[in-house]
Amino acid sequence: MAKMKATVFVEPGRIALEHKPIPDIGPTDALVRITTTTICGTDIHILKGEYPVERGLTLGHEPIGIIEKLGSQVKGYEEGQRVLCAAVTPCGVCSSCLTGFHSQCGSRSPTGWKVAGGWKIGNYLDGCQAEYFVVPDAQANLALIPDNLTDEDVLLIPDIVSTGFSAAESAGVKIGDVVVVVAQGPIGLCATSGARLMGAGLVIAVDPVEARLEKAKAMGADIVLNPTKCDVVEEVMKLTQGVGADVALECLGRDETIGTCVNVTRPGGTISSVGIYSKSIPIPLDGFGAGLANKRIVTSTCPGGKERMRRLLNVASTQRIKLDHLVTHTYSLDDVVAAYDLFGHQRDGVVKLALKP
Amino acid sequence: MAKMKATVFVEPGRIALEHKPIPDIGPTDALVRITTTTICGTDIHILKGEYPVERGLTLGHEPIGIIEKLGSQVKGYEEGQRVLCAAVTPCGVCSSCLTGFHSQCGSRSPTGWKVAGGWKIGNYLDGCQAEYFVVPDAQANLALIPDNLTDEDVLLIPDIVSTGFSAAESAGVKIGDVVVVVAQGPIGLCATSGARLMGAGLVIAVDPVEARLEKAKAMGADIVLNPTKCDVVEEVMKLTQGVGADVALECLGRDETIGTCVNVTRPGGTISSVGIYSKSIPIPLDGFGAGLANKRIVTSTCPGGKERMRRLLNVASTQRIKLDHLVTHTYSLDDVVAAYDLFGHQRDGVVKLALKP
Amino acid sequence: MAKMKATVFVEPGRIALEHKPIPDIGPTDALVRITTTTICGTDIHILKGEYPVERGLTLGHEPIGIIEKLGSQVKGYEEGQRVLCAAVTPCGVCSSCLTGFHSQCGSRSPTGWKVAGGWKIGNYLDGCQAEYFVVPDAQANLALIPDNLTDEDVLLIPDIVSTGFSAAESAGVKIGDVVVVVAQGPIGLCATSGARLMGAGLVIAVDPVEARLEKAKAMGADIVLNPTKCDVVEEVMKLTQGVGADVALECLGRDETIGTCVNVTRPGGTISSVGIYSKSIPIPLDGFGAGLANKRIVTSTCPGGKERMRRLLNVASTQRIKLDHLVTHTYSLDDVVAAYDLFGHQRDGVVKLALKP
Amino acid sequence: MAKMKATVFVEPGRIALEHKPIPDIGPTDALVRITTTTICGTDIHILKGEYPVERGLTLGHEPIGIIEKLGSQVKGYEEGQRVLCAAVTPCGVCSSCLTGFHSQCGSRSPTGWKVAGGWKIGNYLDGCQAEYFVVPDAQANLALIPDNLTDEDVLLIPDIVSTGFSAAESAGVKIGDVVVVVAQGPIGLCATSGARLMGAGLVIAVDPVEARLEKAKAMGADIVLNPTKCDVVEEVMKLTQGVGADVALECLGRDETIGTCVNVTRPGGTISSVGIYSKSIPIPLDGFGAGLANKRIVTSTCPGGKERMRRLLNVASTQRIKLDHLVTHTYSLDDVVAAYDLFGHQRDGVVKLALKP
Repeated sequence: MAKMKATVFVEPGRIALEHKPIPDIGPTDALVRITTTTICGTDIHILKGEYPVERGLTLGHEPIGIIEKLGSQVKGYEEGQRVLCAAVTPCGVCSSCLTGFHSQCGSRSPTGWKVAGGWKIGNYLDGCQAEYFVVPDAQANLALIPDNLTDEDVLLIPDIVSTGFSAAESAGVKIGDVVVVVAQGPIGLCATSGARLMGAGLVIAVDPVEARLEKAKAMGADIVLNPTKCDVVEEVMKLTQGVGADVALECLGRDETIGTCVNVTRPGGTISSVGIYSKSIPIPLDGFGAGLANKRIVTSTCPGGKERMRRLLNVASTQRIKLDHLVTHTYSLDDVVAAYDLFGHQRDGVVKLALKP
Repeated sequence: MAKMKATVFVEPGRIALEHKPIPDIGPTDALVRITTTTICGTDIHILKGEYPVERGLTLGHEPIGIIEKLGSQVKGYEEGQRVLCAAVTPCGVCSSCLTGFHSQCGSRSPTGWKVAGGWKIGNYLDGCQAEYFVVPDAQANLALIPDNLTDEDVLLIPDIVSTGFSAAESAGVKIGDVVVVVAQGPIGLCATSGARLMGAGLVIAVDPVEARLEKAKAMGADIVLNPTKCDVVEEVMKLTQGVGADVALECLGRDETIGTCVNVTRPGGTISSVGIYSKSIPIPLDGFGAGLANKRIVTSTCPGGKERMRRLLNVASTQRIKLDHLVTHTYSLDDVVAAYDLFGHQRDGVVKLALKP
Repeated sequence: MAKMKATVFVEPGRIALEHKPIPDIGPTDALVRITTTTICGTDIHILKGEYPVERGLTLGHEPIGIIEKLGSQVKGYEEGQRVLCAAVTPCGVCSSCLTGFHSQCGSRSPTGWKVAGGWKIGNYLDGCQAEYFVVPDAQANLALIPDNLTDEDVLLIPDIVSTGFSAAESAGVKIGDVVVVVAQGPIGLCATSGARLMGAGLVIAVDPVEARLEKAKAMGADIVLNPTKCDVVEEVMKLTQGVGADVALECLGRDETIGTCVNVTRPGGTISSVGIYSKSIPIPLDGFGAGLANKRIVTSTCPGGKERMRRLLNVASTQRIKLDHLVTHTYSLDDVVAAYDLFGHQRDGVVKLALKP
Repeated sequence: MAKMKATVFVEPGRIALEHKPIPDIGPTDALVRITTTTICGTDIHILKGEYPVERGLTLGHEPIGIIEKLGSQVKGYEEGQRVLCAAVTPCGVCSSCLTGFHSQCGSRSPTGWKVAGGWKIGNYLDGCQAEYFVVPDAQANLALIPDNLTDEDVLLIPDIVSTGFSAAESAGVKIGDVVVVVAQGPIGLCATSGARLMGAGLVIAVDPVEARLEKAKAMGADIVLNPTKCDVVEEVMKLTQGVGADVALECLGRDETIGTCVNVTRPGGTISSVGIYSKSIPIPLDGFGAGLANKRIVTSTCPGGKERMRRLLNVASTQRIKLDHLVTHTYSLDDVVAAYDLFGHQRDGVVKLALKP
């Protein structure tokens, strides 16, 4: 049986590049030969044992590659085509998907609905930090990459861009909105970009790290605020003549970040959260107008599926967004342990890195 | 100068029926002779000093009466017409109103936007527990009462019905939704009615008081759950084959009621809150899927304005809802102190009472 | 090879009950033993040759039955369960389905997208006027029927109810809306019911046939108008104090019916059409305000999929709608030719008939 | 009584600069000293007698100027502030405004609702091609102009930008959408800009005039198509792999332009029209899928009100859009007859002109 190299979770604190059989595929799957992938913040949580996965699982959920083989039920594709799929791989046919919540796809769960069940690859199905990778429900998930885009141009689309943009989209950003984006990690930067792309009239990016605020400007922020140096709520109120922002995007998941988002928005404003929380979330009473301020808090998880990917690839293809500068480092898959080390410790100004088998 | 009787806030713990001049009106106002009004839970908070208003303010925000006089700028109405206005009286021309958030109308506020600023009458403008009452921004607020409806038929429309229905409306209840309504006070009962009216397939009402659960059934609940007798989340999960409710309506404003709402909803579900909170609101981590469950929390405040009232009067006029049975007691305005006493202590099975000058 | 009886299209003007092999199923299919089905107006068009299908095709798209056999990829169901599927059977995984337009599912089409491609069964796949029937994409389409509902209670759900309700749903009927429903055939009657179910404050049904207007009242119309006896636009304007209706539902597809819908709506109103047109559709200039009236025209096609069916079964199960009285006749499948004859000529007051193998 | 110069409609075929009294204002009005205004295509229709207005009316509906005097009821402004108002001046308090359809504001109409009633100035109230101008319902309509913007930067905002953008906004353009914009006059150019601003992935502009297609590129079109040189529907289908566009924006109002819009959209697509039609509008049968294609046609009219203007001024202020290059000519008000002549005959490459008292 042919073998391949794959990045597996060994135990908390340890991943390793191991040899595994090249996987078989079922009738609705596709096998993809990976050309480029990356490491996500979530992978670091897995490495540290903070997010539990089964030992031996192949990690990785941002696959770029070439179709190697197609299941018998997968129509309209050909071997050799250059493709990607999203981090979230919906089945399309469960109740959740049919209701429009593809991110909550639970068809593979034995116990019915499951929160964020749509994130399967590198979570409870083998991931793509490997030479080969199985795309589940391939008919719903395989997206062709336009020829004018490099792997680096599209590397962030499967997760970071889809998630970051969804913050702005779920908020329903409108032409002329004042949008505050809280936290400027990779997802926050893409949220900033998404708000700008949707026509926000004023984009205010917030982060305690100056280097990130510089990147935020490059991604479309008009104004940047450092919460260690100013009172963010006060500044936003000044910038909006005391009215508050129309929209705030929460891109981290801490008490103070969600608090800021609630407090900077005007009555009738929207808080859109893509942060991941680790404990009960306190909504500030005054900022929420004691429940009487017509505010709303919406949440989303990385939208997936080939149609979502097609749209994001479109905007990359027509140069609406420029992402390759966020790929700051490149590693061979053989050096995946070193790559995790660099990314996990955020050394050397890394934003995202390309990992190449 | 002609005098009238009016219920005024004297000091915390004391209201009184006093004589005040019949008020003058400005060019955009209308003077209404009150025929029926009521006492709201909020009035009890004011009486107790829990919600601050100026001493000497006339209380009351649910006015039914006859047009006595019209300001020079108010067109299309005639003296003698039978009208009501909502508890929230938007101006229509401030930024908040023009954005569609009439409940957040802040045009009268000296400091710009103000949370729930749209509630003016009996809050910072004189209210309607009196013989005469001034409708501010009358052109935006005067609604004609159809002849086939009694004062009692429409008495709950200015506040309780508009607020309770808005819980269901802001949630976007769809045909076939499973809707859980938490707390069955007057607003919760109207939320139950609103969910049913919008086509919910299964309405589950929750309250610890059995008598309220009986009323909930009369208002359209299919199933009632008493949280002192069962685990509400577990029951809802059973009733929905482990999926959870599509929508939960929060009609009280306590930690446990918002918590229940978050926990009973499915991934992708909506929590719609019209409760009034008194401290920071904790959103349960698991029920909220750590922020990844695509849930959303929306809030609303009593929608006002004549167009809103016209719609609600329509559904009362065509017998879609039957409200007079919720008016359990009638008092003369002369006995307003006794009426506050009965209502404040919730004696004698009172739901709402009619107060008649 | 086992045989079954099936209603096949022989040639324009002729259908026949023939013997066909009981079909094999693929990995994503399910075989259902039909217990009850019906004949649709569209089947009559097929019979007359007005809508082209292949000769030899089994007709019928409203299947009620028992699971006989499941494809290897279909999970969570058991043989012997009582099920139905919608007339439209989406795949869930094509671009159209992933975009939320399951009714436009085109996965089976060799030429990409196809209008109303989601209607497959009895159109280009064999239908259900037979002893056995293959449900395509069964995971997305099989809906369990609650025990408290008879076959007759649910017989209209796969097509007529789903389509009729979608007229009201696509219009976004709101609490208190004035809704005019033009044409009261089976779909129009269900549109009337849907408008009422969503909280319309006044439902006005329009049809030239008095017997249908009587049924419209039973389905929830407050007022009925016969266009042969009055000027419908004028009457609606009178009923709405010159404002016009908020919503008009077009349920036929003729110049005069769409024209009426455009003309009766207020500026900003919505025209929702589920009628099928046979030529270029003229939108009246004045009623459309020369394009400046903020009106919108939305269209929909029978929504399908198991989640849609689950919701409609819910509202039938909790008695929100009562449909069995619309099933006026019952025929054995052996008498299918006679059944077509009765239904095609609308004899004997037939609304819908049950056809039982 | 002080006099001013004003452009009046004398009779079909003739306008003139006349002397009129500087108008008085009522309690809810504001008097503005005009610094810059422009001529609209509609004014040319008025001049030609194709759109009827009263003789002696002052024309013009795009006012830029300085507050000269405020009515007693207008709060929060000061004399001397630099302001504009939209072509549509909603009252905020009629049924239409309270329903959210400010463009259909009918409060000033003696006969209730009136199509596009919101367009008052230069239509049935005196307009702004004059030295002074009365803003009706000033509280709802006066918008402050940011200091960093010249009169030319904002001259198109009151009508052309607000209308053009509304085409994209009413369509609900989403990130990655393929949008076809049919007709590239001033409004079409702004629709192109609006589609781009909202995140469209591919913007295709259509017009028979090459010079306009050049301008369309400058406004954000990725691809331009000339219907005299290619089959637009065929080209769009090629560009979208046979799927069709997500959205088409109709910016003219002719049979062939609305036809193209219907025909280029995919099933489930949206046609958004801001064109003005002059006769019954034929919707092509096949392109509309016989009513079964889930397409929708939405219409809008220049959104007005100060909040709308504030948002558009925001996006101009932060350089999201660049409009001054569309102002190709400048005239003194004294030369208004010559200005009409140039603009009416579209001589000398005029797009829009500035008219300065």
